[in-house]
Amino acid sequence: MSADQHDETLAAFRASIDNIDAALVHLLAERFKITKAVGRYKREADLAPADPGREEMQLARLRTLAEQSGLDPVFTEKFIKFVVAEVINHHQRIAEGEQL
Amino acid sequence: MSADQHDETLAAFRASIDNIDAALVHLLAERFKITKAVGRYKREADLAPADPGREEMQLARLRTLAEQSGLDPVFTEKFIKFVVAEVINHHQRIAEGEQL
Repeated sequence: MSADQHDETLAAFRASIDNIDAALVHLLAERFKITKAVGRYKREADLAPADPGREEMQLARLRTLAEQSGLDPVFTEKFIKFVVAEVINHHQRIAEGEQL
Repeated sequence: MSADQHDETLAAFRASIDNIDAALVHLLAERFKITKAVGRYKREADLAPADPGREEMQLARLRTLAEQSGLDPVFTEKFIKFVVAEVINHHQRIAEGEQL
C-alpha cells in the first residue's frame, strides 16, 4: 500500500498532529514574546543574558512534568536546551542593542 | 543588581514562561502518543517510516502559521525538523519491532 492521502486512518492521525503543531507554534511565539521582554528588561537592569541557576531549575521541573505526562525525559532535556539556546541568542543580540 | 528571585518583574515573566513550558511539554507528550500510534499503524500497513512529501507540506503550513503568530520562520523550521527527527527515530524503532 502506498502512503496516499486516501488512507483515512492516517489522515485522522495527521489532522490531530496538525492541530497540535498549530498550538505548539502559537505557544512558542508567545514564549519568545515573553523571553524577548525578559531580554530587554535584563539589558535595562544590567543583568547577564544567561542564568545557569534558573536553567537548572527549569530543567528539573520539566523533567518531572515530562515523567508525569509520559514524554521521554531525554527528548525533554534536548528540547528545553534547544529552546533556551535560541533565547540566549536573542538576549545576547538584545544586550548588543539589536531591536528584537 | 544580581539576578536574585526577589526581582518581581523577572519573577512574573518567569511564572508565565513556566506555565507555557508546562503546556508545551504536555502538548509534545500528546503529539508523540499520536506519532507512535502512526508508527504502529505504518508497520501494520507496511508503510515507510518517513514521508518526505508530508514533511514538506507540514513545513510549508507551519511557516505560514509562524508568520501569522510572529514566530521566527528559521527557528520554526529548525523546531519542526528537530521534532520530526525524533518521530522518524521512533518509527524506525517501531518498524524494527520495538515496543514504544
